[in-house]
Amino acid sequence: MSAKLPDAQAVHAAAARLKGHAFPTPLLSSPRVDARLGGRVLVKAESLQRTGSFKFRGAYNALAQLDKAKRRAGVVAYSSGNHAQGVAAAAALLGMPAVIVMPSDAPAIKVANTRADGAEIVFYDRYNESREAIAARIASERGAELLPPYDDARVIAGQGTIGLEIADDVAALGLRLDAAIASCSGGGLVTGCALALMEARPGAAVYAAEPEGLDDMRRSLAAGERIANDPAARSICDALLAPMPGVITFALAQRLLAGSVAVSDAEVRQAMRVAFEDYKLVLEPGGAASLAAVLAGKLDVRNKTVAVVASGGNVDRAAFAATLNS
Amino acid sequence: MSAKLPDAQAVHAAAARLKGHAFPTPLLSSPRVDARLGGRVLVKAESLQRTGSFKFRGAYNALAQLDKAKRRAGVVAYSSGNHAQGVAAAAALLGMPAVIVMPSDAPAIKVANTRADGAEIVFYDRYNESREAIAARIASERGAELLPPYDDARVIAGQGTIGLEIADDVAALGLRLDAAIASCSGGGLVTGCALALMEARPGAAVYAAEPEGLDDMRRSLAAGERIANDPAARSICDALLAPMPGVITFALAQRLLAGSVAVSDAEVRQAMRVAFEDYKLVLEPGGAASLAAVLAGKLDVRNKTVAVVASGGNVDRAAFAATLNS
Repeated sequence: MSAKLPDAQAVHAAAARLKGHAFPTPLLSSPRVDARLGGRVLVKAESLQRTGSFKFRGAYNALAQLDKAKRRAGVVAYSSGNHAQGVAAAAALLGMPAVIVMPSDAPAIKVANTRADGAEIVFYDRYNESREAIAARIASERGAELLPPYDDARVIAGQGTIGLEIADDVAALGLRLDAAIASCSGGGLVTGCALALMEARPGAAVYAAEPEGLDDMRRSLAAGERIANDPAARSICDALLAPMPGVITFALAQRLLAGSVAVSDAEVRQAMRVAFEDYKLVLEPGGAASLAAVLAGKLDVRNKTVAVVASGGNVDRAAFAATLNS
Repeated sequence: MSAKLPDAQAVHAAAARLKGHAFPTPLLSSPRVDARLGGRVLVKAESLQRTGSFKFRGAYNALAQLDKAKRRAGVVAYSSGNHAQGVAAAAALLGMPAVIVMPSDAPAIKVANTRADGAEIVFYDRYNESREAIAARIASERGAELLPPYDDARVIAGQGTIGLEIADDVAALGLRLDAAIASCSGGGLVTGCALALMEARPGAAVYAAEPEGLDDMRRSLAAGERIANDPAARSICDALLAPMPGVITFALAQRLLAGSVAVSDAEVRQAMRVAFEDYKLVLEPGGAASLAAVLAGKLDVRNKTVAVVASGGNVDRAAFAATLNS
């Protein structure tokens, strides 16, 4: 783990590394949703990113900075699925071996895609084993780089390139951003975006969106210290189950975030249906959490221009169909 | 109907009119699909366009050219749904009344969205009534502009702006386009794109994709004259059921197209599933026809760079869920 706090310059450096490797993703509008909400909602469709989520950005930015000897030794990561795919794809592009420690109940599509990129997968029990410990042991045995999913300055800076693209696209539309919201598990995405947006548009308010009951960032910000989630808490947002904010991400969040909003499973399902009908996007539950916060009125967008990061689209066919039919 | 054949200059003029009104749509890649097919497939995600299909482009380009008196009298159009939504949205932006003649079996989402944009809807029986006659009568009664779905130089030029965007984005990627394929009902989309692409990249081969049994363009090109479909023919591609090529579109097709490829319902459903899993796109059946042609190997993409226009995403939730589960 790199313990130094990343800054906006680190995000710009990440953007230069990612050029030609990460896909620039579009900022989408739905005049119908905007009319319903009375505001301007700009959906950053990061579900269309390479590997189907934003995670490729942070992974590639971190691994591209390793020297040749480190690259040969490979990378080890633990992930519910999206970081796994991001690391596997980045490692494949850089010619590195990758080992991914994944929960045994990860969505099948995330497991299959990680394997398709050539990574070796080690399963663990999400509720009874420590993925950090398993990954650390493997990394130590192989001399490999252990790449944490969020609490790493290189990873945070990579995710922050989303904020740079949002700032550029909002400016190109002749608009002025009032707020932005991004989903939050460990906090790498939302704090990275905040770094970029605070530089480009200092007055904008950046919010995290979390599942109800797993709103550790919201409670940590309120308490002024990192607070863990109840291990018994559950959510359909399989990508947003990190146990507590990271050390680096919490330090950034305290400095940069305007707050965090918790959304229910029902609100997330409704957001997935709206993403389907009004934006024609396939979003996974965690990828729809920020849109859910806006649609449920938990983040007020009336008379405002608000960027909503739709962070991923890796959802099994049957689960998506069930949500459409519910 | 404007009988003059449009040219590449008309497409450039359309692009200027559409600027700030149509959404620029992204050109997406799936490294996984590319690896499977051994070629470079670039999906132009026109499902992300305003109104969920490419039809807004042609409609807006045509209506924006009307003078104030014509705009006050309004517009009449007939459509299975996507042209309806495109015309309704363009008319609303231009402050024009709109009447849309729609088949009684049009997907509910297309009817609802057309109505949401303030258009008046007149239903007809797709298999026993003439939509052209009904629309012409209403237009005559009201002195309104009758806007055909495809056989109109202004509409074709508007759809052709998709080809301009593809050419620009392919060049920005440092690639050289070998071929492009777009779905074909009456032929406005594919001939418009061909106009733009033939200018930007004269060596590229442009193909139409049609449903099996409704491949009137394919058979017309082979015969050297316009041939109608069997009225008994059916397809899940509700957007691709035009009875025969238009006069203008066929003249352009004879001059510009490399051919047309027919796809089965099963191939279309498979393409919708691949669009979901590998591109995270919601595509309606007609919107997936061109991708179906590529995935089924009916258009060979090996060692080639091929643009695939994914033309629309207006599909009911239940129908999409059924396709995912099939």
